[in-house]
Amino acid sequence: MKKEMFVHEITVLRDTFRRLLRRHAKTNLIKLIQKTHPADLAVLFRYFSDTEQTTLFGYMIEDVHTAEVMVELDESIVSNLLEREDPTRIVRIFQELGSNDQADILNLLSEEKVQSVLDLMKEEEQEEVEEILAYPEDSAGSLMSTDVFTLHEETSAEEAIRSLQDHEDAEMVFYLYITNDDGGLIGVISLRDLVTTPPEVRLKDIMAKHVHSVRPETDQEEVAHIVSQYNYLAIPVVDSDDHILGIVTVDDVVDVIREEATEDFLQMAGAGKDREILLKSSWDNARARLPWLFASWIGGIVAAYIIGAFEHVLEATMALAAFIPVIIGMGGNVGTQSSTIVVRGLATGRVNIGDDLKLILKETSVGLILGGLYGLLLGVFAVFKFLDTSPYLGLVVGLSICASMLIATFIGTLVPLLLRKLDVDPAIATGPFVTTSIDILGVALYFLIAISILPVG
Amino acid sequence: MKKEMFVHEITVLRDTFRRLLRRHAKTNLIKLIQKTHPADLAVLFRYFSDTEQTTLFGYMIEDVHTAEVMVELDESIVSNLLEREDPTRIVRIFQELGSNDQADILNLLSEEKVQSVLDLMKEEEQEEVEEILAYPEDSAGSLMSTDVFTLHEETSAEEAIRSLQDHEDAEMVFYLYITNDDGGLIGVISLRDLVTTPPEVRLKDIMAKHVHSVRPETDQEEVAHIVSQYNYLAIPVVDSDDHILGIVTVDDVVDVIREEATEDFLQMAGAGKDREILLKSSWDNARARLPWLFASWIGGIVAAYIIGAFEHVLEATMALAAFIPVIIGMGGNVGTQSSTIVVRGLATGRVNIGDDLKLILKETSVGLILGGLYGLLLGVFAVFKFLDTSPYLGLVVGLSICASMLIATFIGTLVPLLLRKLDVDPAIATGPFVTTSIDILGVALYFLIAISILPVG
Repeated sequence: MKKEMFVHEITVLRDTFRRLLRRHAKTNLIKLIQKTHPADLAVLFRYFSDTEQTTLFGYMIEDVHTAEVMVELDESIVSNLLEREDPTRIVRIFQELGSNDQADILNLLSEEKVQSVLDLMKEEEQEEVEEILAYPEDSAGSLMSTDVFTLHEETSAEEAIRSLQDHEDAEMVFYLYITNDDGGLIGVISLRDLVTTPPEVRLKDIMAKHVHSVRPETDQEEVAHIVSQYNYLAIPVVDSDDHILGIVTVDDVVDVIREEATEDFLQMAGAGKDREILLKSSWDNARARLPWLFASWIGGIVAAYIIGAFEHVLEATMALAAFIPVIIGMGGNVGTQSSTIVVRGLATGRVNIGDDLKLILKETSVGLILGGLYGLLLGVFAVFKFLDTSPYLGLVVGLSICASMLIATFIGTLVPLLLRKLDVDPAIATGPFVTTSIDILGVALYFLIAISILPVG
Repeated sequence: MKKEMFVHEITVLRDTFRRLLRRHAKTNLIKLIQKTHPADLAVLFRYFSDTEQTTLFGYMIEDVHTAEVMVELDESIVSNLLEREDPTRIVRIFQELGSNDQADILNLLSEEKVQSVLDLMKEEEQEEVEEILAYPEDSAGSLMSTDVFTLHEETSAEEAIRSLQDHEDAEMVFYLYITNDDGGLIGVISLRDLVTTPPEVRLKDIMAKHVHSVRPETDQEEVAHIVSQYNYLAIPVVDSDDHILGIVTVDDVVDVIREEATEDFLQMAGAGKDREILLKSSWDNARARLPWLFASWIGGIVAAYIIGAFEHVLEATMALAAFIPVIIGMGGNVGTQSSTIVVRGLATGRVNIGDDLKLILKETSVGLILGGLYGLLLGVFAVFKFLDTSPYLGLVVGLSICASMLIATFIGTLVPLLLRKLDVDPAIATGPFVTTSIDILGVALYFLIAISILPVG
């Protein structure tokens, strides 16, 4: 219900923007842009053509609002807009952004453009951005905000509150991080606790001494895991000397969780890992999906060779051909179920460490139960449908379904577990891989079972 | 790297627990339980057998720590433990929990158990819990915390800070909600802004007047969408008179996003939507997956009929059978790619409203590009592999791959869009549905193309 309301609001806004764009109503557009929430503008931009996007961006003043819109916009839209933009204007917008947001945006631009923007920045800011750009992509370092609010352990509660007033820049302050003489992180206190502390009390006497922190090179998925596991609102990023480099806040973690889930979805289906695939052209879209389909194509060729090799069996019992789709289809589907359960279990931590064998046994017994049941059903069907063929056809088909589903659950479980052991993302194209394996193994088993049971004429 | 550290810590803890359990070292276990973070205990419980879980739970004191463990534990473990537990002990643990957490736990128990627990609670608390239980599952009402901190608009900043000290219960205070004389929500102020405001200033003069709120019946997915879209830390839940009923905090939103993604993963593969499927027995696991496989079984039967009907074509050109797997396999895979992209796009708001036709056109042109390419490749292969067969075999196979992939992208895109129009979760079993449709349509098209091109003799 509420969802429809949100959708409705966006639709109304979109139509208003379009009407004003058609009329070239610049003044009204400028007003409307400023009245619209940056996050909403980011959604709206997806509806506009390249030209409309450029027009609107041209109307935007280089203020905080515009800077926030840049942060919220889809990456491909940002790179489209800024790649064509004058570097001086980019730098003006950058003045309203923290170094981490600046780095995020620069990461989307061509080397040439990045250089021209960096050249225009103040030396100090430039250094800060370059430091962040040096962290690996998808690491805590590239995710963190460097405007952190730290206080010395000897500070009193009263002084702490006063110094808050001087640091309006510091992002999302709900935890205050406490440092010792060496500048090392030694404690944390929530703003809430600070407020309710008598003014003269020193921070070191009220702070929590166990602070969970991550290193700048920690993978963002691990950061998200810790933050969501312990319900944190932020987590500090520290160097090897425990100096705070920045914090990763929960709103960024929410984005990471969404993005990682989307990437896993796409990867499992063998559709690349570009979250903005819908914004890309059909060509780019096809290119991302091409390689995984090639694996499936090779699998199909192998299956064709196998069937070709058993042509004499087929000639003797033509009815065998009729059951090829259901045998590989059901194997593929049950295998995809297994790999989905395991891949998602690995991502959410529900797959226990060291229990791989138990998991494989469990999934294969599911395969046996389902394979037995559907094998029986299909076997009976095969007998009645092809009464004129060999009475053993039902047995062949039933056993083959069972074998195919058993193997499918085994492969579907094994593949993601193996990939994880090899430190590869378990989601990567498990879908096509599992279905392709079943295309080959299912067909091979089917004909092997057929020649051992059926009389070959 | 860091992930491995977390995994390592859990493994060490697990082994320690197991060793102590074997030795029946009650005193040490009690100490270790209390020293372990509730979130970590929840992870550890997944490794223990039913008996071990019961033993550990028996050792736990009815304090805040135990209450927090209950909140963090997997649902099936909680219901297992508490269903066998004495209601008076449950009520004692409940005293450390907010009404929303109490309701969440009661939702997992049998009606009988719920009644026996409710009977032992104070009338006032009982009413509060029953009110929450009445909200639909997965709604803002069932998700919210009812301990909200509200202040009257005429309150001064100084008074506000003082009253914070009297409300230690209020959960995760970072926003203070401001009400008018009628108790209606009219504004919000962050704790941070409050702290830096001169003591005599009234809240109404500094509050933000536009407050985003949701209704108790709002779906949790929509709540998560708003919170993550606007980077909120919490969102108030209000009734029709704008009275605050509770707040949904970002940590709960993080859980919702994870859970919804997991459910979508499982549903897409036709594996039910039980996030804890790995904790269930093989039988329960098989039962959840059975119905969707039945659809796939029916599809296979239909495909068998179709192939049976074309037996004469097959008899004339046996080589046709060899390409059945690759034609339906590649169709199935490219169709799954399309439906995955669309389902995830709908979930993340990347699929634009009203652009359905554009999306279908785009996906089908991807299907045409990929189908054309792989059709050509397979056609050429077919000609060389089966040189002795009809020279037209390559044409038949190539056209069929192209047709199958085109249809697959069409169906893969159309199905989730249609489901959304019908207000059904677009993720529901799109995987099996798409592959099954391709089993049928792909095979039918293949033989239709064959009879129109090949000489049937």
